[in-house]
Amino acid sequence: MSVTLAELAARFGCELRGNGDTLVDTVGTLESAAGRAISFLANPRYRAALRRTRAAAVILKPGLEADCPVAALLASNPYATYARIARFLHPAPGHEPGIHPTAIIDDDARVAATAQIGANVMIGSRTRIGDGVSIGPGVVVGENVSIGAGSRVHARVVIMDDTQIGERCVLHPGVVLGADGFGFAPEEAGWVAVPQLGKVVIGDDVSIGANSAVDRGAIDDTVIESAVIIDNLVQIGHNVHIGAQTAVAGFAGVAGSARIGRRCLIGAAVLINGHISICDDVFVTMHSTVLRSIDEPGKYSSSFDTDKAEHWGRNAARFRRLNEQLRRREKE
Amino acid sequence: MSVTLAELAARFGCELRGNGDTLVDTVGTLESAAGRAISFLANPRYRAALRRTRAAAVILKPGLEADCPVAALLASNPYATYARIARFLHPAPGHEPGIHPTAIIDDDARVAATAQIGANVMIGSRTRIGDGVSIGPGVVVGENVSIGAGSRVHARVVIMDDTQIGERCVLHPGVVLGADGFGFAPEEAGWVAVPQLGKVVIGDDVSIGANSAVDRGAIDDTVIESAVIIDNLVQIGHNVHIGAQTAVAGFAGVAGSARIGRRCLIGAAVLINGHISICDDVFVTMHSTVLRSIDEPGKYSSSFDTDKAEHWGRNAARFRRLNEQLRRREKE
Amino acid sequence: MSVTLAELAARFGCELRGNGDTLVDTVGTLESAAGRAISFLANPRYRAALRRTRAAAVILKPGLEADCPVAALLASNPYATYARIARFLHPAPGHEPGIHPTAIIDDDARVAATAQIGANVMIGSRTRIGDGVSIGPGVVVGENVSIGAGSRVHARVVIMDDTQIGERCVLHPGVVLGADGFGFAPEEAGWVAVPQLGKVVIGDDVSIGANSAVDRGAIDDTVIESAVIIDNLVQIGHNVHIGAQTAVAGFAGVAGSARIGRRCLIGAAVLINGHISICDDVFVTMHSTVLRSIDEPGKYSSSFDTDKAEHWGRNAARFRRLNEQLRRREKE
Repeated sequence: MSVTLAELAARFGCELRGNGDTLVDTVGTLESAAGRAISFLANPRYRAALRRTRAAAVILKPGLEADCPVAALLASNPYATYARIARFLHPAPGHEPGIHPTAIIDDDARVAATAQIGANVMIGSRTRIGDGVSIGPGVVVGENVSIGAGSRVHARVVIMDDTQIGERCVLHPGVVLGADGFGFAPEEAGWVAVPQLGKVVIGDDVSIGANSAVDRGAIDDTVIESAVIIDNLVQIGHNVHIGAQTAVAGFAGVAGSARIGRRCLIGAAVLINGHISICDDVFVTMHSTVLRSIDEPGKYSSSFDTDKAEHWGRNAARFRRLNEQLRRREKE
Repeated sequence: MSVTLAELAARFGCELRGNGDTLVDTVGTLESAAGRAISFLANPRYRAALRRTRAAAVILKPGLEADCPVAALLASNPYATYARIARFLHPAPGHEPGIHPTAIIDDDARVAATAQIGANVMIGSRTRIGDGVSIGPGVVVGENVSIGAGSRVHARVVIMDDTQIGERCVLHPGVVLGADGFGFAPEEAGWVAVPQLGKVVIGDDVSIGANSAVDRGAIDDTVIESAVIIDNLVQIGHNVHIGAQTAVAGFAGVAGSARIGRRCLIGAAVLINGHISICDDVFVTMHSTVLRSIDEPGKYSSSFDTDKAEHWGRNAARFRRLNEQLRRREKE
Repeated sequence: MSVTLAELAARFGCELRGNGDTLVDTVGTLESAAGRAISFLANPRYRAALRRTRAAAVILKPGLEADCPVAALLASNPYATYARIARFLHPAPGHEPGIHPTAIIDDDARVAATAQIGANVMIGSRTRIGDGVSIGPGVVVGENVSIGAGSRVHARVVIMDDTQIGERCVLHPGVVLGADGFGFAPEEAGWVAVPQLGKVVIGDDVSIGANSAVDRGAIDDTVIESAVIIDNLVQIGHNVHIGAQTAVAGFAGVAGSARIGRRCLIGAAVLINGHISICDDVFVTMHSTVLRSIDEPGKYSSSFDTDKAEHWGRNAARFRRLNEQLRRREKE
């Protein structure tokens, strides 16, 4: 589909710089875009690339157009505007309502006529699948589950009994929702499994990445509020509560009963200890370990950047004797 | 199901404080329980909640009943007792023996008449499925596998050829047992894959969390002894040996040929180096890196708690020059 | 299959020490091998075991035969030679061309007559499956995918639309290729999903471990060059480029648009920051965090070995005040 810059500017509320008749039909990076591709500048580190770009046009912040050698669409949030224009130029694959003949759907399940159910899908008793939901091949949905309108469940997701999923959610392949939490009582003879009787409750517009897992609650529920985005291979423990609009990067792990506020950014491979709480607007940098509650917004860290191993090793050796050495000096 | 406290006390060996006629039919947290819900106190940090609870009764240690405003069941291990009472009040979903018509079972496989085999399950040649085993939908079981009586294999687990699983094990969705270990010999031209000829051997009462992986041995087997509990997204390398009753938290990774003793607690995202051994009764705190063998029981650590990023950054910058700075002073 | 040492020496280019008529029919470790088992010595830490071995023969480097109490095959790369001999003695399971009757293959897909397609496999429109490819049960292959000759796709892998896979690749169970990258533009009201329009392109002889995920590109493609080996539970973000022969261990995470060179060794649970580049021949030790680009070959680290928790804790407490303390001294 080809569209003029003037039309894009009007449709997406941008200010136009340059020739409004310029045609655009795809997107590209500042470096790779050519022909009718539109690009964007969101990360200032790519400003040099802007000056060299051969894109048909670039979406950028007002004030940067001087560095732009081609037409521009000025937007206060160029990345979000780019996202919308990219979706407009490349619509998501069509939705084809209907149930594949190999799907196995319990008689007591309710599937909206506008839903699309893929091959070899299994849906349990009393489960409700909303309008326009798309369920990919091989997905297993347990009993008494609800999936809200417009949600998209990709191939091979497993959704255990009683899970509640809001509207317009996206679950990527291999996600597991509602498996038992890691709850065991120690005894002399071994571990006694603690029945995991809560469920998983997920709001609207939540995205969960490939092969991530969200455990069901032990007694109360595990809750993920609306507009939370979760990357691949993330682990959310039982009874965890994650506030709206929080982002959780890959390999992050949230231990049981932890509570994370709204608009937090949890970096890759961050671990959040169990039974603690993190207030709104906290950013934890990648590979950090949060052992205690955080009650002040801001940026937190406990990881080091890599160094040459030899150099690192000498410092680490010093660290191992740090207390001893400082104590000795204090006594001198 | 409603039951009196007197009956629970008798059945689970607790001492009763308060009215034995009190009826109980569900469980709850100290904070959420009300009506006929029974709760428990295992973690002392919830003692304040005990004083405010509106539960019908609370399971707790002898000596704490003074703080309990309602009836109490005194037990030496309140959490384990709670686990058993919760299971009694909320029995696991019924087991329905039989084979779903869509299951594909090799003629040479032996499936116990009391086993339950779900939709789209595939079972390979010479595999034996024991009494009362439950296999969820979409599970793939290879050839020459054995699964002991009473084990439960959840949806979409993959069990590769030759794997041996004991009795009463639980494999959560997405688990992969017996995939090839990461064994490659480097050559100028690339990597030569080393055939992974061992298998995976798992004892009784083992639990493995969602999307975790246990690799088959390279030559000898990968062994997980009885009563080991493994959380979600854990990686166990080839030829690893894990002793009985050890617990392994999420994202923990055990590299090839490592040996872990009994009753160890391996924290979340702990990495255990290959070819080392850890003795019995070792607790490694989350996010630690175990590079060398540990031969003394106790608690080990190598991770830091998060700090405000600005504060952390200044200390980290000092750390980068620590050896240099200390050496300079030593020379002074 | 039994074979003489003389024949193995001739076939795999080794120098023979000892009786060439010695028969060999399996492999073993130095400690477990007996009877007709051949073993190898690649890691010097097992030299003591060499002296005690009861293997029929041992593959080792020239110069070590004096320590070998049994026959020997001398090879410049004993581990690679072992790998080839082990495969020779234990050939991979037979390949049986054909399509399982339960497989669901789009009319527009092209599947080579020599390919093997397992039960409940789903293959989308315009996808091409090459000669001798093996696809395990329950695999989901999207539209417009290509899988090169001789590749092996294990059970329950998901390959999303447009993914290109070279020849002789191995994808272990639960792998997800081509799911959407973690791209969202922040707005006041929440996150706007950025369409992920690139694809995944994988070279020849690539191995990817169980439950690992490789995201599709946002605009350009995510590229994994030939002979890259990837362990279990690894996450490769969108637009990442990994150079030939690089090895990536378990739980390693490569964030979006990072570029890794050739012949790198990325240790377990290493995190590579987004938008940085790592040159050829870099080794990053396990649990390190690479925040900035590395442009010099060598070994890099940022993780600590575990220590007794009490000792560790005292040093960590000192670390928290390190800058403050050093500044105070500097002022004195």
